[in-house]
Amino acid sequence: MLLYPGMTALDVVGPQGLLAGLAPDTLHLVARSVGPVLSDTGLSLIATTSFADCPTELDVLFVPGGDGTAAQMRDAATLAFLRDRASRARWVTSVCTGSLILGAAGLLKGYRATSHWCARDTVLPLLGAIPVDDRVVFDGNRVTAAGVSAGLDFALALAARLRDEDYARTAQLVAEYAPKPPFEAGSPAAAGPIITRTAQAILDTLVTEARKAAAPLQLPEPGPGDAPSPASRED
Amino acid sequence: MLLYPGMTALDVVGPQGLLAGLAPDTLHLVARSVGPVLSDTGLSLIATTSFADCPTELDVLFVPGGDGTAAQMRDAATLAFLRDRASRARWVTSVCTGSLILGAAGLLKGYRATSHWCARDTVLPLLGAIPVDDRVVFDGNRVTAAGVSAGLDFALALAARLRDEDYARTAQLVAEYAPKPPFEAGSPAAAGPIITRTAQAILDTLVTEARKAAAPLQLPEPGPGDAPSPASRED
Repeated sequence: MLLYPGMTALDVVGPQGLLAGLAPDTLHLVARSVGPVLSDTGLSLIATTSFADCPTELDVLFVPGGDGTAAQMRDAATLAFLRDRASRARWVTSVCTGSLILGAAGLLKGYRATSHWCARDTVLPLLGAIPVDDRVVFDGNRVTAAGVSAGLDFALALAARLRDEDYARTAQLVAEYAPKPPFEAGSPAAAGPIITRTAQAILDTLVTEARKAAAPLQLPEPGPGDAPSPASRED
Repeated sequence: MLLYPGMTALDVVGPQGLLAGLAPDTLHLVARSVGPVLSDTGLSLIATTSFADCPTELDVLFVPGGDGTAAQMRDAATLAFLRDRASRARWVTSVCTGSLILGAAGLLKGYRATSHWCARDTVLPLLGAIPVDDRVVFDGNRVTAAGVSAGLDFALALAARLRDEDYARTAQLVAEYAPKPPFEAGSPAAAGPIITRTAQAILDTLVTEARKAAAPLQLPEPGPGDAPSPASRED
């Protein structure tokens, strides 16, 4: 599971909590270097493995979203790490805007995928992915989930594939995942236009930066302009 | 928000993620000492404040659950910290078996409260609380939530009280909390007897230890036996 500055901690901790029982000793929290990594809400998680020391063969490669998404979409070391491990991983997965980082690494080209609602239809296509409005989207060995709390639904769906459905049900019962939100506001349609505009304002910087980071990764338009290829980008 | 060894990280990170926007600079992750605290699934969170340095007046005192519950129910320093801060806090709150720790501190006597399903009806009454089978239970300024993932429902309900319902709805939309579990197994009734027995086996040590930790805190039975009072316990 990738950690990076400005990640959303809940994107990581939801799936980690539900999947840890499957592989307690081989679940790695990977970052550029071992040690604390600050999330976008001020809580730090501790990376247990560096890019260099992370096992080369992974069952599951996982990327969380968060305010720091755009910086990771531009980070050559992160993208190289993801491309390398994804080439051999059994499952290549993300929650929230983590799919934009996978996309920036070229790992979602031609795949059906989802992301946080704020970026799904606007940014994913810039990365060659086919946006799907669903909570969890499987396409081949790519598994992407919608925003933040969708990591719980994602983890149960993945646990069922990694082990079996009864294992997933047991994890769900241990986590008492019988959700009962006190409000109906989990999607723009349910929340209505006023709440959605307020949420969009909060998310505006994230989306704008992600779009900027995605733009140079698009196929070059016919004409005199020259877009740099992902492989040549080092900024 | 209390951190302790063997806490369930998701109990902390769900509420932290949804509530951090309300008070980014005054949300403290408190433990016996500053630094990494290992959760019950092997992921560490970092405490930002020690018991000694934690502000004395808190709007919200929060206690997570986890495999380490029983040890905290017996930890004199933790119980003293909770009693002190709770005496002045606006809200005294918990997720999952965190309510057993509040109970061991004597903070739920006579209050309606909930906990993880594995301990709600069996351990809460030993601590003088009145168990309620609900996702989030408000009674006076005590707010307790059911197991693990109930922390999301709890945080939204509390955010509505701390600020207003539109704020909570916005936090819900930012977290895209429109849950869609792939299975129906979030409660013992939904999961059925076989899955429930498997989950109970996983949770057995936690429940047994919590019951042992709670037993000496009960009112002494009439007779020759002498149960130590909470105030005299230092083990």
